Amino acid sequence: MSVTVPPLRSDQRQRADRLDGARRLVGADLERVNVLILERLQSEVSLIPELARHLIASGGKRVRPMLTLLAAKLCDYEGEAQIALATAVEFIHTATLLHDDVVDESDLRRGTSTANTIWGNKSPVLVGDFLFSRAFQLMVATDRMRVLEILANASAILAEGEVAQLVTANDLSTTEDAYLRVIEAKTASLFKAACEVGAVIADRPAVEERGLADYGTHIGIAFQLVDDALDYAASQAELGKTVGDDFREGKITLPVLLAYNAGSSEERAFWERTMERLDQSEVDLSQAQAYLSRHQGVEQTIERACQHGARAKAALDVFPSSPVRDALLDLVDFCIERAY
Amino acid sequence: MSVTVPPLRSDQRQRADRLDGARRLVGADLERVNVLILERLQSEVSLIPELARHLIASGGKRVRPMLTLLAAKLCDYEGEAQIALATAVEFIHTATLLHDDVVDESDLRRGTSTANTIWGNKSPVLVGDFLFSRAFQLMVATDRMRVLEILANASAILAEGEVAQLVTANDLSTTEDAYLRVIEAKTASLFKAACEVGAVIADRPAVEERGLADYGTHIGIAFQLVDDALDYAASQAELGKTVGDDFREGKITLPVLLAYNAGSSEERAFWERTMERLDQSEVDLSQAQAYLSRHQGVEQTIERACQHGARAKAALDVFPSSPVRDALLDLVDFCIERAY
Repeated sequence: MSVTVPPLRSDQRQRADRLDGARRLVGADLERVNVLILERLQSEVSLIPELARHLIASGGKRVRPMLTLLAAKLCDYEGEAQIALATAVEFIHTATLLHDDVVDESDLRRGTSTANTIWGNKSPVLVGDFLFSRAFQLMVATDRMRVLEILANASAILAEGEVAQLVTANDLSTTEDAYLRVIEAKTASLFKAACEVGAVIADRPAVEERGLADYGTHIGIAFQLVDDALDYAASQAELGKTVGDDFREGKITLPVLLAYNAGSSEERAFWERTMERLDQSEVDLSQAQAYLSRHQGVEQTIERACQHGARAKAALDVFPSSPVRDALLDLVDFCIERAY
Repeated sequence: MSVTVPPLRSDQRQRADRLDGARRLVGADLERVNVLILERLQSEVSLIPELARHLIASGGKRVRPMLTLLAAKLCDYEGEAQIALATAVEFIHTATLLHDDVVDESDLRRGTSTANTIWGNKSPVLVGDFLFSRAFQLMVATDRMRVLEILANASAILAEGEVAQLVTANDLSTTEDAYLRVIEAKTASLFKAACEVGAVIADRPAVEERGLADYGTHIGIAFQLVDDALDYAASQAELGKTVGDDFREGKITLPVLLAYNAGSSEERAFWERTMERLDQSEVDLSQAQAYLSRHQGVEQTIERACQHGARAKAALDVFPSSPVRDALLDLVDFCIERAY
């Protein structure tokens, strides 16, 4: 598939505009989701809202809940269930973030710092479990077994993907296919479910369910590819993602795999030392960036993201043109343009 | 309530007999649960069955699944859903154990060792999430929204109880009531749900649902009280529970609260040093046991367990006498007699 990669700079204003359509169409719903999030975070045990609010209220773009709200609107859904489901999706995502940040003894020895250095390991795990259970309570309240089925399956695939990532984390022999399967499981499965349930609550035909599911899968893969690219794109530090996190953890992502596979034996030895044996010094991140740049690891990763973005857009062809569909198409560009 | 505490020794044979009725009545079902457990642990990601099997297959008395199987049988349930639900309950329990064992940096510094020292922190958390999601998939397969509701609520209460326990963990000013609320949440909520769903799948009237729910709550509280007592009862080491774990973690349980509140100022200073400030030396565990013995902390805790055991039994009065009811009554004694 031949895809034109957009120029490496576009202005900030245009990027913001990509969300304008979505905000106009589901802004009121998103406000209700924010209210429900705070309401369902409440607990007599004050550590729960305290710790969860730290993460969940701290700005996030609410991409996943927005997908559920737009998907339901695309399907002309007239009910109320989309609010609870968008909240449930955000809770599952937040639980995953909390559990992702758990550190091993080895991380502590290497001095890796995560949000959990503030709270310890244990509270974020248990608060994550609480959010996960709250998500299921919210789904039950919609009284739709198909919705429960889709989100329970997505959660299992997500958790399986997280374990798979852990296993392959420091393994440079990971193939591009294996890597894509991992991100499809750990990231795209929730994006997919978030979109699919919109069609389910609106009782739409299977072809539309499938269209939204495919849209979700591919925007999810694109989102994760861009995330992995951004980890090495120093100039984008202002976008909120810390540069070099994946590198320091030795987390093998596509930019590294591409550079490793195309690299000289000296380069390969560098990646093996830094990523597999986690033997790193201060200058290694810039060295890694230089090698990535030589083999266009970041650019090629973004090109793959553009390909999945195109597939996400094509999946919406089963729906007639409408402002809601336009907003979903714009959201794809928003996710990819984070990289510029 | 006046309760006669049984003598402190009964023979091993009698204790084993307490489970004979249950095994005769639901042994075949329990075998199917064991098969389903292994089947649903399967994953392409081999770390998942490897790690989970370590815990889930390593004996365990399957008390919770047995409760679901017996409850369904007590309600003359003729279907198949009890197998999936008993498995789901065991998965939720196992996920909790995995997450409970997560250690903080401070634990590592103190050299506390748990199962997670083998696997690190991260894998058990993610495998726990997988089991939790698998539990929800199993529940969805029963196609009963009330069942999902009961188990989602129980999970939320359980997680909230775990966080509450973390917060009160090293606090000797915890009241007995606050302690009981925590164990009702973190232990009894799952016992309660495990029993309650038996009545729900059998479409039994509310009074029987309530009877089984109350039975579950009180056997759950009794079970946890005995567990907390056993942590200080050295002579019972052969029963599989390591003595002194709670003490070393500074986990405040009822035996300690009773001894602390009845203690001299010297004793209170001892508990404050060892449990609140975690400043412990090798002789402190025997000193703690001596203080507990002086104030009958263990015996009084078991007395409370007997009271809840009696309430569990009374809750089954709404059911006519039957071999299944007898097995459930015996199960109460089994849980309490672990202490002797």
